[in-house]
Amino acid sequence: MDSQQTVDQILKDHVPEELLKKVNKVIYGAEIEEIELPPMDKDLQCELKGYKLPRAKPEEMRAPRIVRVGIIQHGLVLPISDPIKAQRDEIHRKLVRYIEHAAASGVNIVCMQELWTMPMIFCTREKYPWTEFAENALTGPTTELMTKLAVKHGIVIVSAILERDEKNCDIIWNTTVVINADGRVLGKQRKNHIPRNGDFNESTYYMEGNLGHPVFNTTYGKIGVVTCYGRHHPLNWLVYGLNGAEIVFNPSAIVAEQFETLWHVEARCAAISNSYFTCAINRVGTEVYPREFTSGDGKPPHRELGEFFGSSYVTAPNGVRTPSLNRSGDGLLIAELDLNLCRQVKDSWNFPMTRRLDLYSKRLVEAAEPDFEPQIVN
Amino acid sequence: MDSQQTVDQILKDHVPEELLKKVNKVIYGAEIEEIELPPMDKDLQCELKGYKLPRAKPEEMRAPRIVRVGIIQHGLVLPISDPIKAQRDEIHRKLVRYIEHAAASGVNIVCMQELWTMPMIFCTREKYPWTEFAENALTGPTTELMTKLAVKHGIVIVSAILERDEKNCDIIWNTTVVINADGRVLGKQRKNHIPRNGDFNESTYYMEGNLGHPVFNTTYGKIGVVTCYGRHHPLNWLVYGLNGAEIVFNPSAIVAEQFETLWHVEARCAAISNSYFTCAINRVGTEVYPREFTSGDGKPPHRELGEFFGSSYVTAPNGVRTPSLNRSGDGLLIAELDLNLCRQVKDSWNFPMTRRLDLYSKRLVEAAEPDFEPQIVN
Repeated sequence: MDSQQTVDQILKDHVPEELLKKVNKVIYGAEIEEIELPPMDKDLQCELKGYKLPRAKPEEMRAPRIVRVGIIQHGLVLPISDPIKAQRDEIHRKLVRYIEHAAASGVNIVCMQELWTMPMIFCTREKYPWTEFAENALTGPTTELMTKLAVKHGIVIVSAILERDEKNCDIIWNTTVVINADGRVLGKQRKNHIPRNGDFNESTYYMEGNLGHPVFNTTYGKIGVVTCYGRHHPLNWLVYGLNGAEIVFNPSAIVAEQFETLWHVEARCAAISNSYFTCAINRVGTEVYPREFTSGDGKPPHRELGEFFGSSYVTAPNGVRTPSLNRSGDGLLIAELDLNLCRQVKDSWNFPMTRRLDLYSKRLVEAAEPDFEPQIVN
Repeated sequence: MDSQQTVDQILKDHVPEELLKKVNKVIYGAEIEEIELPPMDKDLQCELKGYKLPRAKPEEMRAPRIVRVGIIQHGLVLPISDPIKAQRDEIHRKLVRYIEHAAASGVNIVCMQELWTMPMIFCTREKYPWTEFAENALTGPTTELMTKLAVKHGIVIVSAILERDEKNCDIIWNTTVVINADGRVLGKQRKNHIPRNGDFNESTYYMEGNLGHPVFNTTYGKIGVVTCYGRHHPLNWLVYGLNGAEIVFNPSAIVAEQFETLWHVEARCAAISNSYFTCAINRVGTEVYPREFTSGDGKPPHRELGEFFGSSYVTAPNGVRTPSLNRSGDGLLIAELDLNLCRQVKDSWNFPMTRRLDLYSKRLVEAAEPDFEPQIVN
């Protein structure tokens, strides 16, 4: 497969039009309408896609709530061996242009990938110079820059960075900052589940988040954040649903080997199970490190982290999803959502109503005890 | 789309071989090897497919645990207006032949669709004559017949029927009986989540199950049952995982409109989230009722229940799945599984270890209270 080609593209190229409609109905859940968007400046090498997800039925008592989200996947600009500040500043410069284009396209909420200002340095297990990418979540240069953009364009920005909590013993966190359309930092979310597999040695750098599952009531809807590996945990998604989220962003950084299959299943299933929209965003490119590292897989030391495969996409609460962005280059996907659909899907399918929370809360309390006895019939 | 054609088949017909391999790697997670099987008797109009899901790595301390599961999807034999007993007996007769063929193909565990002995009569909201399909789960004719087959072939049978609990006020349940390879009825499971949408007026007939989430330690592995609509509930799947299930069967009866999209996502996501195998089984055909009924969708009264679209499939704990059976005819899908893969995936991806059950059990207890306050940041 040309590494740029998604499955969507291959099907488009080879399946006859009439059949493709029917295939897409099963694969995406509906025929997805494209949105016309202003073209990007030619020097920006960035895929641009716009899709309209199905509208809710008209209601008498509520007006439609149409929101445009923009999700951005991107690769590094400078080599990882360059000075830290230069690497970050060049990424800032590039992303400002993408975000401005999103704003010019009518986007209301923008979200980038996990740790969007830096490489995924955890494969190295080295602390310096990499932890110098960490910054104060409220006053650091990235939040400062994003706040200006939010005010200038009246947009919400969801910005996933490496946080240095100087107030509390200099501890590092994997943190997402949510900035409202009026420029207020509404708050932050810390990654709730930390991977300990493959090259993702993140547990060497930070711990599981201690901020719960906040839902931010922004100008354009109630949003939550599931950071990367938290995507594997249905309970994580579930609690955002319980807290009233209408859109949950999943800024991620995952590599193709093994995980590409899961990518197209998990965030989509979460949208279905919880009757909200989900936006899954992955970075792109293969990152090359100055010194060798091992991957705990019996293979020789190497300098390349696996292939981040982009493929960002958006899913509606009824399971209908957009096609993916490409697998290897920068991209901006704009999706038009009708937030009224969340409640209509709940009314129709009754998943929250039939959830039996009382039964499960009791059982989970038992299962969390060290002397838990599973219900096994011999 | 020719209603027999699955997406798998359309891709096979149109995508060039080299590209198809790569598409399948993303869609199925791996190239799936077929198993050669003895052919079925020609008069049986039943699709037969065999697949080998990826093996676990060899271990020093455990031998491989290879199990063949057989999942069967099928349609009614006689018209729904025929006498109840005749309808059931003809289905029995047909299914015995399918099960015998599965046994002759080396299958160790067989599972049929939800309420496999009868039509999905709940669209009518009429009690008679339909509730006459209900039978005693331990001593009724279906369990008696299945017990004989289990002993004869040394196979485990998972049999989802309509239960009449004569001992307890004649209450009706949607129940799955699990019969061990030695012919012992190990026990039963009652559907934990009842739909209240579209034509699935099941809450008129029975209540949510009261038997918890039993995992049956059969001759061929630890198995659980998620009945149909329970598939939409991640907590339902989760508790089977906590109770140690290695394979969870999902006998179902769902119609294409809206739900075909979800079908390929949910049982697969459950396998991934819980590090076990899942087997999703749906019935086939359009059932026509003697009297008209309405569907609560503003459309006129009619006699046809929607199209049950088959498409049964099996997923491994690493997300690799088989292609689906066809959309409209009977089918037997045999999948060879290596149960050692469950623990290897847990060791590799650490989903159970990173689950934070303690955090979530506390939060769910709060959320189950009527005065629950969601965590919202304004």
